[in-house]
Amino acid sequence: MATAKQLAKMVNGVNVDNLFTTIDAIKAAPSIAKFNFRIENRWEGAGQNRSAVNTFHGAGQEISRQKSFILHADEPPVLLGDDSAANPIEYLLHSLAACLTTSMVYHAAARGIEIEEVESSFEGDIDLHGFLDLDPKVRKGYQGIRATFKVKADVPDERLQEIVELGTGHSPVFDSLTKGVPVAVKAERL
Amino acid sequence: MATAKQLAKMVNGVNVDNLFTTIDAIKAAPSIAKFNFRIENRWEGAGQNRSAVNTFHGAGQEISRQKSFILHADEPPVLLGDDSAANPIEYLLHSLAACLTTSMVYHAAARGIEIEEVESSFEGDIDLHGFLDLDPKVRKGYQGIRATFKVKADVPDERLQEIVELGTGHSPVFDSLTKGVPVAVKAERL
Repeated sequence: MATAKQLAKMVNGVNVDNLFTTIDAIKAAPSIAKFNFRIENRWEGAGQNRSAVNTFHGAGQEISRQKSFILHADEPPVLLGDDSAANPIEYLLHSLAACLTTSMVYHAAARGIEIEEVESSFEGDIDLHGFLDLDPKVRKGYQGIRATFKVKADVPDERLQEIVELGTGHSPVFDSLTKGVPVAVKAERL
Repeated sequence: MATAKQLAKMVNGVNVDNLFTTIDAIKAAPSIAKFNFRIENRWEGAGQNRSAVNTFHGAGQEISRQKSFILHADEPPVLLGDDSAANPIEYLLHSLAACLTTSMVYHAAARGIEIEEVESSFEGDIDLHGFLDLDPKVRKGYQGIRATFKVKADVPDERLQEIVELGTGHSPVFDSLTKGVPVAVKAERL
């Protein structure tokens, strides 16, 4: 019984009791579902810059981490950088992979589906004719992204596809990137 | 004269001669403008996962870094994680900030506009009613993102706005995120 109780609470490393407690809390007080995430970025010359990630608003409160997470970006030499960090468009693939993985794992946990391992690979195509203003018909951004999820779970083949669709059906980054997000940008003097 | 020559070559830390050499090379052989970026991600339990960033295709060749960049993702406790790293949706803001900054700085360099400092702040709103399937009218992703760029440059006020628009007008991540990108996801058994 102790084992059964433990399995019911923790699935895929996720505390499912807390997940359902969160859902009940949001039903009782809808405003606690509103989250606001932030970063601060500083240019460090050429293709290098650095973001500090710390506070956010969520669950009805301002939340601070004990220390900021620092994310560095650069470009490889062929894109005129020093190759000291991943570049922005690689960070976008990481953001997408991470969000699809977490969304899949959390929603599988809520349904009691145990997942043993997940690996994924992502690739995206960009044609620099866009960025360099060499052809107005070529977009600046990714023309398309392809991903493969490899999942180890004791489920029949048809459930495997359903598990991956728990990710694509719920991921905030997948939704943002595939459907687009309005981004307002203001300029000020420093 | 030596100083003038040096200024002409390096603007904002960007080797402008190399930038124009790249543009000429693409005009001569358009296929070298096609870039393909990739990452590999692995789930590490609950809200934790890790991407390895290394090879890409660009400038007509396969390019490997000396070692992979490792990007870790997690969630804060209020989102059932251990808070060991930034979360996926914070990585998305970093990707956007980094790409807008680099795009602005490179395109300013190409126009001979010297920029002294750049700082930016980004914030985005998410309502978990979407992610948690509590309200089908609420999207899973960001409802909107707001950014402020603070730029130090010896230019009149009206040029400041133009400088920031060099970023929004050219950034691959801004273009991808505001207009949307098709993402194809395959499921396989591990």
